[in-house]
Amino acid sequence: MFHRWRLSDLAITIRDVAKEAGVSVATVSRVINDSGYAHEDTRKVVLEAVNKLNYKPNEVARSLFKRKSKLIGLILPDITNPFFPALARGVEDYLQKEGYRVIFGNSDEQLEKEMDYVDTFKQNNVVGIIASINETDSEMLSELSIPLVLLDRTIEALPSVYADQEQGGRLAAEKVLERGSKEITIVRGPKNVKNVYQRFEASYEVLKEAGVKVNILDSNLSFNGAKERAIELFQKYPQTDGVLACNDIVGVAILNEAQRIGKRIPEDVQVIGFDDISISELVYPGLSTIHQPAYEMGAKAAEILIKKINQEKLLNIHYKLAVSFVERKSTRKIGK
Amino acid sequence: MFHRWRLSDLAITIRDVAKEAGVSVATVSRVINDSGYAHEDTRKVVLEAVNKLNYKPNEVARSLFKRKSKLIGLILPDITNPFFPALARGVEDYLQKEGYRVIFGNSDEQLEKEMDYVDTFKQNNVVGIIASINETDSEMLSELSIPLVLLDRTIEALPSVYADQEQGGRLAAEKVLERGSKEITIVRGPKNVKNVYQRFEASYEVLKEAGVKVNILDSNLSFNGAKERAIELFQKYPQTDGVLACNDIVGVAILNEAQRIGKRIPEDVQVIGFDDISISELVYPGLSTIHQPAYEMGAKAAEILIKKINQEKLLNIHYKLAVSFVERKSTRKIGK
Repeated sequence: MFHRWRLSDLAITIRDVAKEAGVSVATVSRVINDSGYAHEDTRKVVLEAVNKLNYKPNEVARSLFKRKSKLIGLILPDITNPFFPALARGVEDYLQKEGYRVIFGNSDEQLEKEMDYVDTFKQNNVVGIIASINETDSEMLSELSIPLVLLDRTIEALPSVYADQEQGGRLAAEKVLERGSKEITIVRGPKNVKNVYQRFEASYEVLKEAGVKVNILDSNLSFNGAKERAIELFQKYPQTDGVLACNDIVGVAILNEAQRIGKRIPEDVQVIGFDDISISELVYPGLSTIHQPAYEMGAKAAEILIKKINQEKLLNIHYKLAVSFVERKSTRKIGK
Repeated sequence: MFHRWRLSDLAITIRDVAKEAGVSVATVSRVINDSGYAHEDTRKVVLEAVNKLNYKPNEVARSLFKRKSKLIGLILPDITNPFFPALARGVEDYLQKEGYRVIFGNSDEQLEKEMDYVDTFKQNNVVGIIASINETDSEMLSELSIPLVLLDRTIEALPSVYADQEQGGRLAAEKVLERGSKEITIVRGPKNVKNVYQRFEASYEVLKEAGVKVNILDSNLSFNGAKERAIELFQKYPQTDGVLACNDIVGVAILNEAQRIGKRIPEDVQVIGFDDISISELVYPGLSTIHQPAYEMGAKAAEILIKKINQEKLLNIHYKLAVSFVERKSTRKIGK
């Protein structure tokens, strides 16, 4: 199972074997990879040459000729945000069933790292890439010669799987309104993370139309600073009775701070998060949130990628999945 | 930046260039990689051959000869457990400063996947591996021809970075005892995850010696089932007034369930987790826990790996980092 590398081994290529056996490279490839017809005598001669030269097929070298390595590259923005490991789980489970292995890259929402991983994956002969990337150069990506599917983010020209952020933002606003909040604070994510910003825009539109008081607070999407944002929120807007958080990490921090300063959840202030990461269910009170079907999104992206790898025709290239409201104890019951 | 592949390109190797230029492969390599002396005339002849044959150095192909690719493979047991992304963060930040890129594999605590990733990484010419792996065949791993450092887990014969689990288990037990609990439930992790089991054994020893009533509940380490374990705990041991959880995920679930059934934290029951993942600080009440220096462990493993890659002598091969008690609101104050 483990291949011992010696410098001499590295020098022997499939072409040496072909030369030794007196056949073409393609023939050697077919024999070694058992991937097509080869006469019994030919097979024998090739295998003798393989043994004589101590040729060790290297998966990478093999794939240079056969291009059938079973590696997929997955680029995530931030593995410390539980939403992305959840996406990755969906991708991995699906691909594993199909015999592929997944290697991950963590891009920290940086364009340079994103493109660097695309390059690294290509250089290491992955057969497809799934990327949850933020700023994108769609022209550069469209020119990629290996199949790529975007996940959680979308670009016109590329196959993408994502969730209905606009529906999510609308839902959150509608739910907090119908449950009686009158002064609502939206904690919005960074403007350059477009899909998250869409949530804010959709929520804001609903609330503006309803004529309620709306406060806006800016936040990032990670654990770093979530606590500070929560403290800031109640200092700036002590009268707020409803909070829409850009994601569950921020939502949990807000639940914490509200209780710490003595507010009752949900009587004094309701909180709705976004994502439905595992922790939302485990905190007390449970965090009401907008469920993103992370696992299904990951699996769908994997399914589409395999179709592209197999050069099947795709009916759609954009797959938008619905979100839903998950009611827990951080929101009031209807009519209260 | 992006390399367009054509089949003809794949057929041209460094050996063709050497042949065309009338020099050795090593000479071509030195010229192309600018990695050693080459006479100006030689350089000229080689570059002419490169252009004539349209030779495109492939990072992988180059590394087959030069073995200087800057890729590190990192194997984690479960990226959906926030502790491991935190370890990864430490690894990545350190390696990035040194010019390396990290690709991840997620092993799900399965030996087969662990070994599969080791193999995949080797085949794709990573120059070193950091692995947080569980069951291990130390002989197989010791035979690996590329540098490997274990993280969070340890084997005699291999360089490892890990935290003092025994100290952690002891601390947790001492703290809950000195804060007044009389009937303590230890929620222990799976026996086959040795480092986690050590926590249990150390806690148990302290509690047994103190003569208090001790209950034991088995649990896994993930979000899956944490809620159910918590429910089961209070059904089986309704009088328990102190809980030591195998990790923070389980600790948070227990905090939740305790409050749901009307227990006051920490007056009726104290809870101590393990790890100090970000969420421990964000829940209400904050979860007291044993801090594992995840980031520092990751950075240390990266530092050692680079030393091994550069074939520097290692003074130690085992690095055990201390843990510490983080006091939050889920435990009582001393004297109460």
